[in-house]
Amino acid sequence: MLYLVGLGLSDETDITVKGLEIVKKASRVYLEAYTSILLVNKEVLESYYGRSIIIADREMVESSSDDILANAQTEDVAFCVVGDPFGATTHTDLVLRARELGITVASVPNASIMSGIGACGLQLYNFGQTVSMVFFTDEWRPASFYDRIKENRDIGLHTLVLLDIKVKEPNLASLARGRIVYEPPRYMTVGTCAKQMLEIEAERKEGVYGEDSLAIGAARVGGREQVFVAGTLKELCEADDALGPPLHSLVLLGRRTHELENDFVREFAVDKEKWQRIWAAEYQNKH
Amino acid sequence: MLYLVGLGLSDETDITVKGLEIVKKASRVYLEAYTSILLVNKEVLESYYGRSIIIADREMVESSSDDILANAQTEDVAFCVVGDPFGATTHTDLVLRARELGITVASVPNASIMSGIGACGLQLYNFGQTVSMVFFTDEWRPASFYDRIKENRDIGLHTLVLLDIKVKEPNLASLARGRIVYEPPRYMTVGTCAKQMLEIEAERKEGVYGEDSLAIGAARVGGREQVFVAGTLKELCEADDALGPPLHSLVLLGRRTHELENDFVREFAVDKEKWQRIWAAEYQNKH
Repeated sequence: MLYLVGLGLSDETDITVKGLEIVKKASRVYLEAYTSILLVNKEVLESYYGRSIIIADREMVESSSDDILANAQTEDVAFCVVGDPFGATTHTDLVLRARELGITVASVPNASIMSGIGACGLQLYNFGQTVSMVFFTDEWRPASFYDRIKENRDIGLHTLVLLDIKVKEPNLASLARGRIVYEPPRYMTVGTCAKQMLEIEAERKEGVYGEDSLAIGAARVGGREQVFVAGTLKELCEADDALGPPLHSLVLLGRRTHELENDFVREFAVDKEKWQRIWAAEYQNKH
Repeated sequence: MLYLVGLGLSDETDITVKGLEIVKKASRVYLEAYTSILLVNKEVLESYYGRSIIIADREMVESSSDDILANAQTEDVAFCVVGDPFGATTHTDLVLRARELGITVASVPNASIMSGIGACGLQLYNFGQTVSMVFFTDEWRPASFYDRIKENRDIGLHTLVLLDIKVKEPNLASLARGRIVYEPPRYMTVGTCAKQMLEIEAERKEGVYGEDSLAIGAARVGGREQVFVAGTLKELCEADDALGPPLHSLVLLGRRTHELENDFVREFAVDKEKWQRIWAAEYQNKH
């Protein structure tokens, strides 16, 4: 049997009791370690679970899924995923491959950033589609998020923006010389996200959002050190110090915002008076 | 301290290890029991947690929140919520009241139906806003869900429909005679939801969806007895036997559907050949 076990959002104690029982008994335990990370490292998990863990990087999951699934017709394999097991497309592939091989699949759900973000005080049913933001380079500035955010904003909804993480990226200069050297991991911050958003608005000029649009920076959602900083996109460009270490996410406010949501979120504002002024002028009863 | 503890979606072992530690140590343990239910009863939870549990019904949470928060400045109170603690508006109220009283609040996230629904094989980032469906009566047929679904469909997104539950509803005839007698709990099924959806389409005639629209009925998501049945809305009107006991939810497919999502979902179809035919004609590359 293949078990997809969600690990939740922050540390070793966020696994469910059901998930922990499966991990303790499985023949092999994998940890998917490239679409998200916990705030604790592999050794902490191994010690807490009492099991050794095989790190499954992107290449292993995408190219060597049959190794992961070996003998799972008769043995139990635990494939652990940060957050909820169905947060990322790759795991759908793994399940489809397991089906082809006649392997039964079960999943153990857990908190996902897509639901955990509710802790910022915005109502989950007021969110539209979730978008992703990647690190821009000189040559590659994918901006499909802009069109998606526009769709959400047009109907008044909030948008959760998930931020890029780069783990186990090969250094290109070394690669050209035939050696594989990995770059240190990089995690996009709210500041970088807000700046990239404003760059694209400056190019596209469709008024989807602007420097004074209200947003919430979120750090380590679901963890003991969870932090929210609310402000304008311009203010959030400078909020990285207040937010602290990764992982970060950002929420852009929609205009279909309830009074109660504003009461909750305003407490996190860099400048409460400014937040309230913009909210009253641009958001309240504006949809 | 007030702890909002998510219990997850199905049984007593879906609590996280972190949540269980808090519940075991808290001065008082409440269970919010009106916006959703677990698939096990209070006694199972009490035995598993080793604690007695106070059921918090809607009236208590909305009118007597200060009783729940009593002494939480100095003691730990655990307020347990099925799914994730921020799934329902009422808990936002409780947090705001706690803030007023100078009580520190922490939350322990867990799986929510809004992320757990990913187990059906549709990608979470292809979902638009979530809607709710209540039991229609002769006098009251709220159809705001129709407009919301239209917004999602217009931009190609899937819609998760959460279905009404009625617990502790007073019997109106008894109430008129001055006695409070509670009706047995009622949980909306996928069949009722699909019929009510088609009734509203028949009235509004905006072509938001129809009898041949593809959808997925979901039962006991996240539980060991999780079932998905995929089919047209007309087929899902008759799928309650295949789905089994509560809780049910429904997903209406959007046209921005990836090939891989279809591969995954088709396995659950009442009639795989028919599903594929409609998918190819009406969904594939149609957005």
